[in-house]
Amino acid sequence: MFLSSTSVFTLCLFVCISAKYAPNWQSLDSRPLPAWYDEAKFGIFMHWGLFSVPSFGSEWFWWSWKGSKSGRFIEYMKENYAPHFEYQDFAPMFHADLFSPDDWADILEASGARYLVLTSKHHEGWTNWGSKYSWNWNSVDAGPHRDLVGALANSIREKTSLKFGLYYSLFEWFHPLYLEDKKNGYKTQTYVKDVMTPQMYEIVNTYKPEIVWSDGDWEAPDTYWNSTEFLAWLYNDSPVKDTVVTNDRWGDGDRCKHGGYYTCNDRYNPGVLQKHKWENCMTIDKHSWGYRRNSPLSDYLDMDNLTQILAETVSCGGNLLMNIGPTSDGRIAPIFEERLRQMGSWLKVNGEAIYSSKPWTHQNDTITPGIWYTSKADAVYGIVLDWPNSNKLLLGAPKTTEQTTIMMLGYPTPLTWSAEQPTGLIVSMPTIPISQLPCQWAWVLKFTNIS
Amino acid sequence: MFLSSTSVFTLCLFVCISAKYAPNWQSLDSRPLPAWYDEAKFGIFMHWGLFSVPSFGSEWFWWSWKGSKSGRFIEYMKENYAPHFEYQDFAPMFHADLFSPDDWADILEASGARYLVLTSKHHEGWTNWGSKYSWNWNSVDAGPHRDLVGALANSIREKTSLKFGLYYSLFEWFHPLYLEDKKNGYKTQTYVKDVMTPQMYEIVNTYKPEIVWSDGDWEAPDTYWNSTEFLAWLYNDSPVKDTVVTNDRWGDGDRCKHGGYYTCNDRYNPGVLQKHKWENCMTIDKHSWGYRRNSPLSDYLDMDNLTQILAETVSCGGNLLMNIGPTSDGRIAPIFEERLRQMGSWLKVNGEAIYSSKPWTHQNDTITPGIWYTSKADAVYGIVLDWPNSNKLLLGAPKTTEQTTIMMLGYPTPLTWSAEQPTGLIVSMPTIPISQLPCQWAWVLKFTNIS
Amino acid sequence: MFLSSTSVFTLCLFVCISAKYAPNWQSLDSRPLPAWYDEAKFGIFMHWGLFSVPSFGSEWFWWSWKGSKSGRFIEYMKENYAPHFEYQDFAPMFHADLFSPDDWADILEASGARYLVLTSKHHEGWTNWGSKYSWNWNSVDAGPHRDLVGALANSIREKTSLKFGLYYSLFEWFHPLYLEDKKNGYKTQTYVKDVMTPQMYEIVNTYKPEIVWSDGDWEAPDTYWNSTEFLAWLYNDSPVKDTVVTNDRWGDGDRCKHGGYYTCNDRYNPGVLQKHKWENCMTIDKHSWGYRRNSPLSDYLDMDNLTQILAETVSCGGNLLMNIGPTSDGRIAPIFEERLRQMGSWLKVNGEAIYSSKPWTHQNDTITPGIWYTSKADAVYGIVLDWPNSNKLLLGAPKTTEQTTIMMLGYPTPLTWSAEQPTGLIVSMPTIPISQLPCQWAWVLKFTNIS
Amino acid sequence: MFLSSTSVFTLCLFVCISAKYAPNWQSLDSRPLPAWYDEAKFGIFMHWGLFSVPSFGSEWFWWSWKGSKSGRFIEYMKENYAPHFEYQDFAPMFHADLFSPDDWADILEASGARYLVLTSKHHEGWTNWGSKYSWNWNSVDAGPHRDLVGALANSIREKTSLKFGLYYSLFEWFHPLYLEDKKNGYKTQTYVKDVMTPQMYEIVNTYKPEIVWSDGDWEAPDTYWNSTEFLAWLYNDSPVKDTVVTNDRWGDGDRCKHGGYYTCNDRYNPGVLQKHKWENCMTIDKHSWGYRRNSPLSDYLDMDNLTQILAETVSCGGNLLMNIGPTSDGRIAPIFEERLRQMGSWLKVNGEAIYSSKPWTHQNDTITPGIWYTSKADAVYGIVLDWPNSNKLLLGAPKTTEQTTIMMLGYPTPLTWSAEQPTGLIVSMPTIPISQLPCQWAWVLKFTNIS
Repeated sequence: MFLSSTSVFTLCLFVCISAKYAPNWQSLDSRPLPAWYDEAKFGIFMHWGLFSVPSFGSEWFWWSWKGSKSGRFIEYMKENYAPHFEYQDFAPMFHADLFSPDDWADILEASGARYLVLTSKHHEGWTNWGSKYSWNWNSVDAGPHRDLVGALANSIREKTSLKFGLYYSLFEWFHPLYLEDKKNGYKTQTYVKDVMTPQMYEIVNTYKPEIVWSDGDWEAPDTYWNSTEFLAWLYNDSPVKDTVVTNDRWGDGDRCKHGGYYTCNDRYNPGVLQKHKWENCMTIDKHSWGYRRNSPLSDYLDMDNLTQILAETVSCGGNLLMNIGPTSDGRIAPIFEERLRQMGSWLKVNGEAIYSSKPWTHQNDTITPGIWYTSKADAVYGIVLDWPNSNKLLLGAPKTTEQTTIMMLGYPTPLTWSAEQPTGLIVSMPTIPISQLPCQWAWVLKFTNIS
Repeated sequence: MFLSSTSVFTLCLFVCISAKYAPNWQSLDSRPLPAWYDEAKFGIFMHWGLFSVPSFGSEWFWWSWKGSKSGRFIEYMKENYAPHFEYQDFAPMFHADLFSPDDWADILEASGARYLVLTSKHHEGWTNWGSKYSWNWNSVDAGPHRDLVGALANSIREKTSLKFGLYYSLFEWFHPLYLEDKKNGYKTQTYVKDVMTPQMYEIVNTYKPEIVWSDGDWEAPDTYWNSTEFLAWLYNDSPVKDTVVTNDRWGDGDRCKHGGYYTCNDRYNPGVLQKHKWENCMTIDKHSWGYRRNSPLSDYLDMDNLTQILAETVSCGGNLLMNIGPTSDGRIAPIFEERLRQMGSWLKVNGEAIYSSKPWTHQNDTITPGIWYTSKADAVYGIVLDWPNSNKLLLGAPKTTEQTTIMMLGYPTPLTWSAEQPTGLIVSMPTIPISQLPCQWAWVLKFTNIS
Repeated sequence: MFLSSTSVFTLCLFVCISAKYAPNWQSLDSRPLPAWYDEAKFGIFMHWGLFSVPSFGSEWFWWSWKGSKSGRFIEYMKENYAPHFEYQDFAPMFHADLFSPDDWADILEASGARYLVLTSKHHEGWTNWGSKYSWNWNSVDAGPHRDLVGALANSIREKTSLKFGLYYSLFEWFHPLYLEDKKNGYKTQTYVKDVMTPQMYEIVNTYKPEIVWSDGDWEAPDTYWNSTEFLAWLYNDSPVKDTVVTNDRWGDGDRCKHGGYYTCNDRYNPGVLQKHKWENCMTIDKHSWGYRRNSPLSDYLDMDNLTQILAETVSCGGNLLMNIGPTSDGRIAPIFEERLRQMGSWLKVNGEAIYSSKPWTHQNDTITPGIWYTSKADAVYGIVLDWPNSNKLLLGAPKTTEQTTIMMLGYPTPLTWSAEQPTGLIVSMPTIPISQLPCQWAWVLKFTNIS
Repeated sequence: MFLSSTSVFTLCLFVCISAKYAPNWQSLDSRPLPAWYDEAKFGIFMHWGLFSVPSFGSEWFWWSWKGSKSGRFIEYMKENYAPHFEYQDFAPMFHADLFSPDDWADILEASGARYLVLTSKHHEGWTNWGSKYSWNWNSVDAGPHRDLVGALANSIREKTSLKFGLYYSLFEWFHPLYLEDKKNGYKTQTYVKDVMTPQMYEIVNTYKPEIVWSDGDWEAPDTYWNSTEFLAWLYNDSPVKDTVVTNDRWGDGDRCKHGGYYTCNDRYNPGVLQKHKWENCMTIDKHSWGYRRNSPLSDYLDMDNLTQILAETVSCGGNLLMNIGPTSDGRIAPIFEERLRQMGSWLKVNGEAIYSSKPWTHQNDTITPGIWYTSKADAVYGIVLDWPNSNKLLLGAPKTTEQTTIMMLGYPTPLTWSAEQPTGLIVSMPTIPISQLPCQWAWVLKFTNIS
């Protein structure tokens, strides 16, 4: 029997369709990560929720107070609230009265980030969109009475070039249906079926996030969460099936093993090249992801810290997801705006070494510490975290040729260098006054024509 | 083959068990109403919920404001609240700080009522117990942070002889899952399966109510609500299967036709004998079931009204379910307490004509209006709503004999009477001063030895 | 020596002016009480203030909590409020959102009262008008943001025939300037000069009250309060100089001795004729003058109590000032409205024995207790508190003649009576059914042509 | 005639006493400014008050909203608050729950400032201490229920070397007694006598501030404010008479003419040497003195701006009073903390050129702009705001000798320089890498042995 060309096409179509991802890790893990993600390198994470109202301790406020019963939280509440006050009573205080998503978009664009990940729901269960499955415990029914996810998605898409992603917590500290499943040894799935899964479909169908950043995975295996079923749908049939990126937090034991890119642990920063695409999610406030009113300046990482972490992360093949916590009245605090704009000013000069770069053969220098390498096409970039007191840099990793040229990004004149036997080369940093420096923190050397 | 007596017993047991109620109306309607209910005659209804916070207009506040968009409600909210204020923001204002269920029990006992029906959930969806299926939209998670249903159930059972019943609204004005089912022409049942049914099992299993007073039935057929399944469980297997009483609000078209006793419409008071046991649910505040701050005295029924309604209702075979609305701070307002205690003082004298009575051959007198009859064993009771100006009552219904005796309940001396041909008899009301009257409203004549 | 006409005029002016009241008791006490007051007999007192917000315990809430530190108040606040919550924080909760002064006027008019006394300022210092001398601690700057005194004064004057009076507390529990004066043994008068006196002029000039009902007098002598100076101005020069009535609470030791009418103590009800015009101020809620949320029905006086107190008071030459406490949302609770309207219905029938009456030679009967007399022109009125069980009243006080007629107010037929030697007479109460009674509590016999 | 020794003593006493300051400008202006003030050079200003609660627009919020009726403020309030909400209702929201005066002291000490000026009362009239003359409109009776002035004064004195000063607004936008005086053309002084003067004595006697920073002077002449009387007392008899410093805002027309140091206008920065000691009060947030939630990063001055203003101010004989606005929950926002600590780090290196310095013969350089001079003993300091791109500085003001030495503060090696005829000299800035720079903004050259 012959197959007509139409039939062949039909068959192909059928086969292609039947080649879709199956709900098991072998199949799901085979999906190539959409290219945009690795190219982006730098994203902003935002933890916003009802915890932004007390804005005390951390976004784990509720748990610290009522779960682990930390003395500091109990004391604070006792001193400042009526005895019968409970976490739910914070809801009407979440005003977001100054929330201007266009202003946020402006700041985020200026930061140089290429994507944003916003908490759609954190472990408290409160959703920042009007979830049908979290009635009266979401930002539309209560608190600001506003679709925070939708408003920000719109501004990000209209005003910036950033991709819009959503964080979603699988588990909830205190959801009674979840606690019941937990009590049943995760043999029942009432919570997953009535709440979690419908919500995940809701956010994907409604907001078409290009990242689904799962969390709260650790308490139960992915068979409880039905993670592979969700991912199969996400990759096969969802409105973002071609572009969406996911992480690895899909069930106890899955981190660093399954899913899209790996996050492994919070602040994961291995310092050596990884085989699988990964992301370092960390936060500018050292001790909290949500906005904390009681954080002194010393708790905020500065640009020396941040450029170091960016360099280490990108050099080793990771993306950096840098977190800030907006306030409950809808602002990005000036200290965060400053860090974001500083980061943007640095990337304006040095982004060439970051965006769309690839890890080089060496991640950091073999001789001088604090120098991290990336590469792109024929060029190699060395990110110099500390300016050498001697103005001389001894490098071991780059193998020079006679044609080797070394430029500092943002500075017009090639740097002088000399080969240094047997180990490497010495680069002379330009003796330029501070007013001439291309940037204030971490300077990038661009090597071309190295062997 | 012989059957041993044990086997016979076993068979009987099996047959009896298999004789349980099936989930259809023919079977369910065949269940005899537990006797206590008809004997009780008089119950108290209580509408308490989040609507008790605005306490304006009626317990339909949310609907009037946001559903039907009544001008008066919109105006009130506009004048007194911030523009973004929504109904959910009332939750933390539901303090119940003065709620003392023992004090309520004391008042309810004094009222002479034999049962109580409390709103466990009204159309707003807020539950007065900590429902797992209404997380953060209930009195334990939010508002008073207290199990209101449980607290009152305990006090009623410990301190009074009243039966404890629960009102439950099948539908919810604004539950998104319900609205979705509704939009689907009730062909989906997400709300019923995820919310409503689990909640009904929750309250029955937890609080063991002796009345399940369903409402909010009219929007959809009982097949949507799965009413017959619930009732079959309630009658067959629930912890209150032997004693529980239900009403007739189980689906569009079921009222006055199916279920336990009939309520037909609110304030149902047909004035003629009914074939099926029924209940007149009405409310002392003419215009609201929930407490209304803005109700002038003229909106409260007085004892002349209330004794009339009680007499009409009981004479025609009904029970009276008289409603009061507690306040959001947990009080029974003195005006309600006064009516309840007045009712109790009347029943203390005249309860003989009410409790456990049966309708008589005549419900009201054939000649003089305002006289309603009940009976018990050999006695007939005539409830005289208005004292005759002439002190003489001409009655058509009782057929006297020579042995006929007429007493006024609470007054020691038999009344004089004379036969009046052909129509009936004339009773001489005692010419006693007001200070000697057994009560101030509606006097009861007890006829014995009538033919 | 001749006096020119100018001189005569001057002299007259001088004499007229010098005829004014001097700031000493001898002079001030010589002022005749304006006639309207004694004729009025019955007024309504209203305690409204910030204490209406907690509405717990009594209008002395602040003092009970922070002054005498009563356990019950401390406990209530501890259980229901944050630790740092202070009395001042109640201010924004005083909403008066349902306050409709025209509705109040309607109820007050229906009560049969002839005057109203409203607390303009109680011991808490909060003023119900926008006092310049109590900035931000008054109902215009804070709380309802409304001139409560002015709004009610207008409605009372436009819609009713009642006189409008104002209560004013001389002292304040916690005013720091007052406490300083107190600490100085009342030798300084900073509070009096900066706060109290200016406020008293403010209310008199602005609202022209026909009663100035002073209170809070007991802590210091009138020389501290400058009472005689104020009264001299009030009687001589104020806009109400001709009609204003004052009481006797002008300084320690002045009560029952100086000022206008005497109030002596709260609930003063001596039971015997007084030489000086007096007033019995009492309150329907036995334990509080301000509205108390936590008052059970048993704490409210009923009409048997109230008609008794009215009869006793008027018979002995007093006026009755009956108090109710409005709520912080601006309502007269239905239980109070009921009492007021009941009082009005009684006075509609029996007011002839009250308004403009004079004490008779006997205040109460010499034989039968519970019978109180008033008189007017040739008539004597006997207020019979309890209907005699026998329907016969034996009276000792009225001396009959052959022409003596005895009527019951509201009943058309003269009552039969017979002289009873030597002590008095026997009145036959009419054997009318309850439906014919002119009223339900306290019946009035009117005697004419007695000797 | 002989004078006995006693007489001599008496005379001396008399003379000494009569040498005190009289309440007129001639006398008061003759008082020498206590030396500590000129030596201090740098102070921190803090605007904290009820305006910190809305924290919107500026500390003139109330006036903008209700006085000048600015559309932006009206709109914000309309959108976010109930219609009847007034400024006074913000009071209970002033929580200061995170206020830790010791933490503030730590930050202030680290800033390098030598004195602090805190608003004790701004134009809103709210006092940050428990003023007897502003009952219930102060931070002890209302809001935080805490003596903010006292708490901070204690920490400043115990934990830092800063002097503690207080700002006080003479006028109040809306004080009714003030408005009455104003309406009377300032011919009455009720407000001054009952409120203002007593408050000024209160703060001086209670907190012993070493600066009394008067403001709100412009509406009326000093004769209305009784300023000279107050100052005479302050200088003669107050507990701070020997050390207190005052400014020049004592009445319309007095600024830049009378009082202690001159402030002339806000942000006064004349750029040329002044004959009288002066102060440049300015604020880091360009548009507000109070904390503003809605200020983007671009509204905050950065260290380039701040070192420039400090240099200009001190060079011309002024002190810099740099303002920050704490939040209503009691924090110094991290962006302010950063500026303060940056300022402190700069002063740690360069304070030698600031503290106790004197203006030099030249205030800024005659050739190169952006170079400001101070002097101390034999040294002259040139504050170089911008690092020259060429690394060479051409200076016109310093006249060198052969012994002239030029050092950069914080850098160990003398700089090379050469005389440049006829105009001056050329200084070679050291070609040191950024990592070696003594500071990041504004470098100080120290000249010794110049002619």
